[in-house]
Amino acid sequence: MTTAKDILAACPAELGNIDQDKLARCIEACNICAQACTACADACLSEGMVGDLTKCIRTDMDYADICNATASVLSRHTGYDANVTSALLQACAVACKACGDECASHADMHEHCRLCAEACRACQEACTELLADLSCPPPWRRTRTTGI
Amino acid sequence: MTTAKDILAACPAELGNIDQDKLARCIEACNICAQACTACADACLSEGMVGDLTKCIRTDMDYADICNATASVLSRHTGYDANVTSALLQACAVACKACGDECASHADMHEHCRLCAEACRACQEACTELLADLSCPPPWRRTRTTGI
Amino acid sequence: MTTAKDILAACPAELGNIDQDKLARCIEACNICAQACTACADACLSEGMVGDLTKCIRTDMDYADICNATASVLSRHTGYDANVTSALLQACAVACKACGDECASHADMHEHCRLCAEACRACQEACTELLADLSCPPPWRRTRTTGI
Amino acid sequence: MTTAKDILAACPAELGNIDQDKLARCIEACNICAQACTACADACLSEGMVGDLTKCIRTDMDYADICNATASVLSRHTGYDANVTSALLQACAVACKACGDECASHADMHEHCRLCAEACRACQEACTELLADLSCPPPWRRTRTTGI
Repeated sequence: MTTAKDILAACPAELGNIDQDKLARCIEACNICAQACTACADACLSEGMVGDLTKCIRTDMDYADICNATASVLSRHTGYDANVTSALLQACAVACKACGDECASHADMHEHCRLCAEACRACQEACTELLADLSCPPPWRRTRTTGI
Repeated sequence: MTTAKDILAACPAELGNIDQDKLARCIEACNICAQACTACADACLSEGMVGDLTKCIRTDMDYADICNATASVLSRHTGYDANVTSALLQACAVACKACGDECASHADMHEHCRLCAEACRACQEACTELLADLSCPPPWRRTRTTGI
Repeated sequence: MTTAKDILAACPAELGNIDQDKLARCIEACNICAQACTACADACLSEGMVGDLTKCIRTDMDYADICNATASVLSRHTGYDANVTSALLQACAVACKACGDECASHADMHEHCRLCAEACRACQEACTELLADLSCPPPWRRTRTTGI
Repeated sequence: MTTAKDILAACPAELGNIDQDKLARCIEACNICAQACTACADACLSEGMVGDLTKCIRTDMDYADICNATASVLSRHTGYDANVTSALLQACAVACKACGDECASHADMHEHCRLCAEACRACQEACTELLADLSCPPPWRRTRTTGI
């Protein structure tokens, strides 16, 4: 089965100082999470107590959209713009956290929410790890000088 | 790692006569394919001979969009509308074939095209298998011929 | 304000036998419809009787995804593959009809459903008109019957 | 023709301190921009000098994805999470600027790039205006106190 990692490795361009494993992991985490959120929103709609799950459904849908966009942008990794990628990864990490928290809050009642929360946590971690890479070396990127 | 199958299994609603394994496989094949196509388009843009790859790039982009939409619609499987799902799966299978053929035609020159063609074939198969399930039993669905 | 039509007109490639006005109209109808469906699903989630609107919410979400994909594929009009475009337009038209019917069925209770049904009808028409163009002349496209 | 504004107005939930006109304008600007970017990338692929336009094509594609996600998240405005919305709007504004700059740099050679740059600027402005609204009043939102 073709994986994100295989296809990244086949690309002729350099990835700069981004770790290819982390990039592939983050793309896959985003895709898994987008699917989990979409399926969790659908499962919530099938619960008898749907009226209590509207916040979860909305968060799931928002996060699925953000995750899909992030996976696509990360898959276009060559010649990427670090500012755009960082800003999007940050939005994705924030959304992951919001969605993970929301799903976790009723994870003991709904298995789909527990699984979705897990996928969100994994994605949040993958985004955070990649962000750490992005915000270091390159001088042309907003450097975090001492004192800030 | 959360998989499409786990989260489908956690959904409270019935899937009707759709095989859950086939559904999960198709969702995952669509996601893998969307990522492969996006990355392949990006890799094509990095090739020196990009002028010869414009058709491949366009096909990749179209197919990534169709695959992403299909993965989302399939993930909302409960209470789904068989007509909509069938029509979309058909479009996805047609796009898979077009993109797989295009990529295969220069697979020996570009490893990313070879991998992308592979992902397209797998997705085409998964869509076709699921379509076979969708287009059988239920009487409320457009029956093909007398006797069914 | 930039419109789909302006930007299509600025493209260097030929559109073949597709009418540029119809194409631009269809792209805009898809975008309007995707937004209407997303907003309608959100509004449904805010209704007290959300439990009665789950089918509408799902249909809205599916259709928004399909419309977004269709708008993107249509915007990549040069060198398009008529088979892929036709299949997707057909899926879009089917989804429009399903979503328009669903929304229309409670249009008198919810203004957002009435507006969404209207957007769906307009989009269904635009898709159907464009399909008519696509499925005629070119000999290399699947001809329907003898005599055409 | 149904507009984003009409359908927002039909939603039963309160929008808090977000200005409905600004929200509708931003949703429409995102949709227009996503379409313009997708069409511009396609037009670039039809130019003879496509090899010089690969950066523009990639930026267009990234921005189309981000704009589409932003339009969807904004359309789900009720009970929205200000942190997620702000982070995404920021990413969208950053991407708009990057794409607008890139397209503007060869606007005098390609009319589609000029139109796309215009759409990007309009979207960047709409995002910035909405961000200003989002980041003010509510005490539960990260306040920018003096001294920071």
